[in-house]
Amino acid sequence: MTVIALDVGGTSMKAALVPAPAEPGAGGEDVLASESWPTDRTDPVGGILDFAAHMAARAKALGRPARAAGIAIPGIVDEASGTAVHAANLNWRDVPMLHLAEERLGIPVAVGHDVRTGGLAEAVLGAGRDAGDFVFVAIGTGIAAALILGGGTYPGVSGWSGEVGHIVVRPGGEDCACGNRGCLETYASAASIARRYTALAAVPAGHSTPNGSVNVRAEDVIARAGTDETAARVWSEALDCLADSLAATTLLLDPGLFVLGGGLAQAGPALLEPLEARLAERLLFRPAPPLAVTRLGDRAAVHGAAILASRLL
Amino acid sequence: MTVIALDVGGTSMKAALVPAPAEPGAGGEDVLASESWPTDRTDPVGGILDFAAHMAARAKALGRPARAAGIAIPGIVDEASGTAVHAANLNWRDVPMLHLAEERLGIPVAVGHDVRTGGLAEAVLGAGRDAGDFVFVAIGTGIAAALILGGGTYPGVSGWSGEVGHIVVRPGGEDCACGNRGCLETYASAASIARRYTALAAVPAGHSTPNGSVNVRAEDVIARAGTDETAARVWSEALDCLADSLAATTLLLDPGLFVLGGGLAQAGPALLEPLEARLAERLLFRPAPPLAVTRLGDRAAVHGAAILASRLL
Repeated sequence: MTVIALDVGGTSMKAALVPAPAEPGAGGEDVLASESWPTDRTDPVGGILDFAAHMAARAKALGRPARAAGIAIPGIVDEASGTAVHAANLNWRDVPMLHLAEERLGIPVAVGHDVRTGGLAEAVLGAGRDAGDFVFVAIGTGIAAALILGGGTYPGVSGWSGEVGHIVVRPGGEDCACGNRGCLETYASAASIARRYTALAAVPAGHSTPNGSVNVRAEDVIARAGTDETAARVWSEALDCLADSLAATTLLLDPGLFVLGGGLAQAGPALLEPLEARLAERLLFRPAPPLAVTRLGDRAAVHGAAILASRLL
Repeated sequence: MTVIALDVGGTSMKAALVPAPAEPGAGGEDVLASESWPTDRTDPVGGILDFAAHMAARAKALGRPARAAGIAIPGIVDEASGTAVHAANLNWRDVPMLHLAEERLGIPVAVGHDVRTGGLAEAVLGAGRDAGDFVFVAIGTGIAAALILGGGTYPGVSGWSGEVGHIVVRPGGEDCACGNRGCLETYASAASIARRYTALAAVPAGHSTPNGSVNVRAEDVIARAGTDETAARVWSEALDCLADSLAATTLLLDPGLFVLGGGLAQAGPALLEPLEARLAERLLFRPAPPLAVTRLGDRAAVHGAAILASRLL
């Protein structure tokens, strides 16, 4: 059997056709076909439904019609009803995504929060497999977490759990888009690392820097941290703020592991090693949980959407 | 049937004989007898076992022999094995409390963490009844929380959940006994409120103040906050730090309610009203969970121990 998996939470939409059940030992990491489409900024819901319908047609053409679909969406999500409550970057409010997709596709659909869906995939197929309870932290344009408790994702009472990006780590600090000041996201998201370096190094965004790069990215800042004082300072502050938030999460929740995902996780040991040291420095009366990087990379949410879909069968 | 309930986590030990099952509608809030004994500082484990044996003898004398016992203990607790792993103020390490108590009493014994046990009682009998998932925060000599998820207490992977007192709310701030700086507990525990006022107002501890009080307590500081500038400042900083930690907890866990317990909860509206306002100020893109004060007061952990015991029957 085949399921359709969609992740519409990133800068573009991703989809895959996956054999079901999408669980370990059942070929869950196999993918029959995958595509990426640009997000439709004027009609994001229509764009998602068109993309899903296109994948259903592809499955049919392959002689393996899809029996269910899973859609990972960003923002605030009511997973029980499959409602897209709110997502700032997609400008929607209370969209009955599950209902609309079932109507369009004629098969059962499951809807999940993108970061929680990614965390589920890490739990079932990735770095959190056999780990017990853990926290998946996606560090990209923003920062959000998924709490994996008892083998499943914990959404909180109203679907707002894991908003670690807005934990204040520097009281009275830099302005955040949320209206507060000193939020983790303001110092440690990939976007903020690039923005802070650009501002401090007086590199106009989109312009050439003295050494020729254009549009500095977080990975450039990390790469320069060994030789460039401004890069070292911005990266060190990001690591300190990340360590502060992981320490707070550890004290509150006592997880067995942190799995780091999102774009910044591509830094690998350059992220893990200093972060492990700084987390241990902050936890003086208890051991620090181990850190790991995502095994599924930017496909975690697609894999998770396939798991959600296959669990409907 | 009767159970023995002990709470040894406070400045003195408390015990009660309670009809079982200690659940709502089954007389769970009834108490046949209760006593308080001083904590044995030289032999705390011996003191606990003697107290439990004394309560067992009392139950027998009442013609209602105890069929099980529950013991709420502070510090790090492995609830599955009933081991008292560590408690700084009782100076023990890896004490097999459950085993020792069963040997002494000859009846089944359950061991729980004192704050989590108090949170369980609030969930079953108190302010968290019918609340769904919530967080119980005990603010006394220290500050710790119990996470009530799915109707039960969530201990974390290694029994260390809920250590909110050591979340850093003022980076680089005042020294904490844990070795870190700027921990919540350093600004907002009842002990810290008294200590900070005493230091700032230059009132030597144990000496008379200009208006005649001796050994300023947190409740005195709160009472003076309307007229005394130093008291107002200390209380306001405590409220800000509490609001910071409740905001971080809300962002991470999305609870449906906070129940505030411990000595400071006796302040009632003087705590709740300003704290509600400050929490809402910090959560700009989502609603703040409601706050409530404990309904069981300083008996929450004893009630919880009775529930643990009655669940063994």
